[in-house]
Amino acid sequence: MRAHRLQTAPVCTDLLAFGTGDDVIPLLQGFLRDEGIRAGRVGPGIGAFSSAVLAFFDPQEGKYHEFEIQGPVEVTNVSGNVATLDGEPRLHLHATLSRRDGSCVGGHLVSARVEPTLELFITRYDRALLREVDAETGLPLLDRG
Amino acid sequence: MRAHRLQTAPVCTDLLAFGTGDDVIPLLQGFLRDEGIRAGRVGPGIGAFSSAVLAFFDPQEGKYHEFEIQGPVEVTNVSGNVATLDGEPRLHLHATLSRRDGSCVGGHLVSARVEPTLELFITRYDRALLREVDAETGLPLLDRG
Amino acid sequence: MRAHRLQTAPVCTDLLAFGTGDDVIPLLQGFLRDEGIRAGRVGPGIGAFSSAVLAFFDPQEGKYHEFEIQGPVEVTNVSGNVATLDGEPRLHLHATLSRRDGSCVGGHLVSARVEPTLELFITRYDRALLREVDAETGLPLLDRG
Repeated sequence: MRAHRLQTAPVCTDLLAFGTGDDVIPLLQGFLRDEGIRAGRVGPGIGAFSSAVLAFFDPQEGKYHEFEIQGPVEVTNVSGNVATLDGEPRLHLHATLSRRDGSCVGGHLVSARVEPTLELFITRYDRALLREVDAETGLPLLDRG
Repeated sequence: MRAHRLQTAPVCTDLLAFGTGDDVIPLLQGFLRDEGIRAGRVGPGIGAFSSAVLAFFDPQEGKYHEFEIQGPVEVTNVSGNVATLDGEPRLHLHATLSRRDGSCVGGHLVSARVEPTLELFITRYDRALLREVDAETGLPLLDRG
Repeated sequence: MRAHRLQTAPVCTDLLAFGTGDDVIPLLQGFLRDEGIRAGRVGPGIGAFSSAVLAFFDPQEGKYHEFEIQGPVEVTNVSGNVATLDGEPRLHLHATLSRRDGSCVGGHLVSARVEPTLELFITRYDRALLREVDAETGLPLLDRG
């Protein structure tokens, strides 16, 4: 993965170019930690995955159900945000993927392996954006106060 | 719904955090009016809805067909724009939603109820962006002159 | 197609408003050439198409498979980027489309005919963003070095 710096001030925007075999979430988390990113907008992101794990949150059960996508699939959209939870950058990403016949599958993005590329914009902000674990849902939510 | 201000100049960007039970469109329209927003980019937005109404525009009939989505559904993307129609802020949003099995459903976003969260970026611009009702389609279109 | 200039500095953002009958890719490529755009973020874009051609990249065969979408379809998302290949602006766009029943179809966007509108944000950057044809895949990839 390589970061292409497109703008530096007043906000910093990079286009992250991932390549075949890249494991998106750990690489992105490493980038966030290395760069000290505490708040950010992620997306649009397009490309293709060889495999991915998506999840669906069942609010009645209060938990995520994960399901695996065996690729290849096109990535028609990956987007979301970066906030801070317990002092660490916290990603929240959703994805829409499409198969050979164009049919789409989507959900909360848990993991993804790239082939041949993923091109993902990220804009970071200086302001704090904090998550806290919500007592009712158990989810790390942004303050909606 | 709470607005988290991420940037103030030269453009203003907020991340809007909606919570369970929030009725997205009226809350967003209230925010636009309160803040005097006349032009804006909306999205990316991700989260989940307990229900939503989407619409499909049939150009031959010249009208929208609405259909209801019974959730829970993940929101893999909500995005669009804000312009001004007859002096009032006018939202135009489309959404892609995904069900428990990952299958996707999309269209023009008419209404949506949040559960447990929707996290939606909005960037406002000082320039005017005007819609006018198009004689041929009856739709409030941007000037394409 | 008309460009509505929303911001001029430090980066330039336009909302492009396409109308019925507009052939999206050639019009967008003409805009990129006329404006000398070498690097950009494209999206979010929403609207509707009367027809489109999408493609799926098969990494084993090393080639794109194209398929035609007969509309009308809503455009729930068009996004991607602009880089430079051999001195010319190079678009890379993916799209998610939805049919009358809300079902979605997506992929790499090859061509699209608008009806009645497409509203597409584009932000240009001064920095160079270069593509080179990758020996292994034959694709014009961003440097991932």
